Amino acid sequence: MSQEISNTILSLPDLDVTSKDLLLIAGPCAVESREQLFKTAEIVAEAGFRFLRGGAFKPRTNPYSFQGLQEHGLELLGEVRNKFNLKTVTEIIDYTHIDLYKDTVDVLQVGARNMSNFQLLKKLAEVDKPILLKRGYAATIEEFLLAAEYLISGGNQRVILCERGIRTFETYTRSTLDLASVPIVKKLSKLPIIVDPSHSCGRSDIVIPISLASLVAGADGIIVEIHPNPPKALCDGLQSLDFQRFMELVSEINHLKPYLRGE
Amino acid sequence: MSQEISNTILSLPDLDVTSKDLLLIAGPCAVESREQLFKTAEIVAEAGFRFLRGGAFKPRTNPYSFQGLQEHGLELLGEVRNKFNLKTVTEIIDYTHIDLYKDTVDVLQVGARNMSNFQLLKKLAEVDKPILLKRGYAATIEEFLLAAEYLISGGNQRVILCERGIRTFETYTRSTLDLASVPIVKKLSKLPIIVDPSHSCGRSDIVIPISLASLVAGADGIIVEIHPNPPKALCDGLQSLDFQRFMELVSEINHLKPYLRGE
Amino acid sequence: MSQEISNTILSLPDLDVTSKDLLLIAGPCAVESREQLFKTAEIVAEAGFRFLRGGAFKPRTNPYSFQGLQEHGLELLGEVRNKFNLKTVTEIIDYTHIDLYKDTVDVLQVGARNMSNFQLLKKLAEVDKPILLKRGYAATIEEFLLAAEYLISGGNQRVILCERGIRTFETYTRSTLDLASVPIVKKLSKLPIIVDPSHSCGRSDIVIPISLASLVAGADGIIVEIHPNPPKALCDGLQSLDFQRFMELVSEINHLKPYLRGE
Amino acid sequence: MSQEISNTILSLPDLDVTSKDLLLIAGPCAVESREQLFKTAEIVAEAGFRFLRGGAFKPRTNPYSFQGLQEHGLELLGEVRNKFNLKTVTEIIDYTHIDLYKDTVDVLQVGARNMSNFQLLKKLAEVDKPILLKRGYAATIEEFLLAAEYLISGGNQRVILCERGIRTFETYTRSTLDLASVPIVKKLSKLPIIVDPSHSCGRSDIVIPISLASLVAGADGIIVEIHPNPPKALCDGLQSLDFQRFMELVSEINHLKPYLRGE
Repeated sequence: MSQEISNTILSLPDLDVTSKDLLLIAGPCAVESREQLFKTAEIVAEAGFRFLRGGAFKPRTNPYSFQGLQEHGLELLGEVRNKFNLKTVTEIIDYTHIDLYKDTVDVLQVGARNMSNFQLLKKLAEVDKPILLKRGYAATIEEFLLAAEYLISGGNQRVILCERGIRTFETYTRSTLDLASVPIVKKLSKLPIIVDPSHSCGRSDIVIPISLASLVAGADGIIVEIHPNPPKALCDGLQSLDFQRFMELVSEINHLKPYLRGE
Repeated sequence: MSQEISNTILSLPDLDVTSKDLLLIAGPCAVESREQLFKTAEIVAEAGFRFLRGGAFKPRTNPYSFQGLQEHGLELLGEVRNKFNLKTVTEIIDYTHIDLYKDTVDVLQVGARNMSNFQLLKKLAEVDKPILLKRGYAATIEEFLLAAEYLISGGNQRVILCERGIRTFETYTRSTLDLASVPIVKKLSKLPIIVDPSHSCGRSDIVIPISLASLVAGADGIIVEIHPNPPKALCDGLQSLDFQRFMELVSEINHLKPYLRGE
Repeated sequence: MSQEISNTILSLPDLDVTSKDLLLIAGPCAVESREQLFKTAEIVAEAGFRFLRGGAFKPRTNPYSFQGLQEHGLELLGEVRNKFNLKTVTEIIDYTHIDLYKDTVDVLQVGARNMSNFQLLKKLAEVDKPILLKRGYAATIEEFLLAAEYLISGGNQRVILCERGIRTFETYTRSTLDLASVPIVKKLSKLPIIVDPSHSCGRSDIVIPISLASLVAGADGIIVEIHPNPPKALCDGLQSLDFQRFMELVSEINHLKPYLRGE
Repeated sequence: MSQEISNTILSLPDLDVTSKDLLLIAGPCAVESREQLFKTAEIVAEAGFRFLRGGAFKPRTNPYSFQGLQEHGLELLGEVRNKFNLKTVTEIIDYTHIDLYKDTVDVLQVGARNMSNFQLLKKLAEVDKPILLKRGYAATIEEFLLAAEYLISGGNQRVILCERGIRTFETYTRSTLDLASVPIVKKLSKLPIIVDPSHSCGRSDIVIPISLASLVAGADGIIVEIHPNPPKALCDGLQSLDFQRFMELVSEINHLKPYLRGE
């Protein structure tokens, strides 16, 4: 790894996040309706998670798939953000959209497909919001850190890395979570790194153990997909936890907390 | 594969390309200077290739690497295009640049890193130029065809696919060329598909046999990197052919031509 | 997964192992000398681990590499086994060697390279010892379970699976640990599964967090490489913990134990 | 690559094979019956291929799958060998079987699953027959050559390498053929290398173009699966050519011959 990788520390004072806190993010793959989002935000807040995720502009492999509620999705995120005092995290797929996100989104997410979209990264480097940068499907850890360097060298030090699995031959999971990236990133940089168990596994039935393992491996948090009715989800239902299992996860995390982060 | 994949045939009458012709493209990884580009264009024209490639806006893994001559690179491409009667092929990394390419570029290339940048694809669907779409490092053949579908469903039928290898554990090559994608794409669509032996191999010493194998496997052409002085190249010198070996490749292709395409 | 996968539970009463115990295994990659093995066994016993690993017959990629002490290595394992009251685990690479292992080895290990050596598996199915079966570098979880089925259908139900990583493009680690296999195997079978953090990571500096994460993900134990002087190891020194760091790992596991296994 | 890789040239004078000849091998995945084998051998001989392949001892992922006719399969190979003056190629999975192969098999094949079964390789190094060594699913080119070195350093210089694809995330083919290994092996060693289009593709519909591409890339031959009635094959029917398509392949190879091997 070149010396060019900057070392930074997450600082989200405006988000009331200290380096002692876990970054716990939950929400639906896509914002589908006011009812779906409000129900989900309520449970996220109840769980004590500080961040609500939810996709408004969805990059979809198939051009004929549901592409998200777009601007209306951002409005709904703004509504629940105020009502439940949650910070919002949502993907941005086009830098000409930056202004649309200004008032309703706290953390801008760069998805796996766009990790090497350097034009997007260069513009996000100039935005005064933290960026959640997901690892590309085929990106090495070195490339992942160099993508973060596009943000940092461009002026935005508030980068949260997110390990979400890489493509391999294994088909029982959607991707293969490369959990070793967590301690390796910790050695190579001071950036926070969280894990996305939902996208890496692609199946909800193993999200709980993989979430807990991620935190024990040193991850600074997780981002997990939940849905009031996963079989009816417009996107990624197979990997979304229903609320009951989400609350089991929350309970397990709380049980594990004494072993984490030197507490 | 869903039924949604459109079947189209390459039609580049304005480029004087018929479906009988091979799409033979050569040039430097990056346009570095007028002298470098003119020398290279001269040999490309002499070889009987109809297309000159050359990067002006370079997406680089490392933000501190050479990022290309940008607008000046496009100008130089316009100059050699007129002088040598070559069609130009160059990568576009940002749809807000489309106008910059209007007068100097014949074929817009979408690089491997941007294959799933659907915002870029949606805008290129509205451009009246053929698009050379490279396969992503971790894209399945199905995802590759669905990316093409973003262009086709958006109105641009003139899509040239380009197999350029996928990421695997093998380190003797930069990527692993998935040559089976060529006959498979031919079965699933009517889109032309060419091969990039330079990026897949990442080493010039095997570019000739892999180029010939690609054509015999049914590829409609190749896109190959050449440079007047590969060890001095600002980008990808290891995989660039020098002019002598390029002319060997040309000679081998000409030798093989009677065997190809039913001629 | 076919219905043919048998469900079994680990039962090692002769090894004083109940299903409540963690299978904790440590030792050198290769048995190199009496002194090296005794020093290591002493620390393993002191740590409270019940199992000592150590290779006697080493399958090496390069025919000119150290191939192990062979029969003499097995004798040394027998000596430390008696002296320190440890159970021994060592790899068997040839079924004609079975008799050699009779008196000195408690658990026969099948290495990743031999997971699909079905002739070996068929013969080990007839042996009255537990088998530690490592996942092949390129084996799917389904193939891994089917390899276990060769042992089970042949009569040996005492199979311990071992996840040790798969081959991917990532080079910062030797293999990519597929931790999701742990909860998935738990769903598909009743076989115990442990994790080898040393071979999967290929670097000792992240072995501790990956070990802990594995246990939290549900692994029934770990097998870890340690050496009195890793830089001087004849085999895999880069991934071996020295004794100080091994004792740190032990301390961390003990700290975590109340959290694990419902204790 | 270390200097330890020996350079050897294929020399099969007893097989009437000179270094100018292509090694063309065809036959069924498994020997199923006298009728099936005789029909196939007849077409192989008629095609002018000199080698008949056919599995007698089959290593199968699933222990409940058909495991081959075993000794009886070897007898049948001996019969057709005499009747049609073909050389026989069949897999050996256990070195204690070596004597069984003595009188009926000309070339001993080591399958992909056994490439790193070094005990098998060490014993085959002492056999006076050529060895066809297939690349492992997850083996690098370097490991492939080092496996060959087990044979060569042990005394058997008559090694034929076989590229048969590696495991990747792509699912439209069974494996991903790494065709670049062919020219790379040619640079690093003097061993002959052939390609197995059937196992790499896992589907018969692209075997013809991939076979031709392999020969043009420099492969010294191909080994291809054919069957009188592929849908009824007991093993690998999807990837087997029927006789009509096999004769098309033969015709294409003959058409291509003037471009190959400096003829």
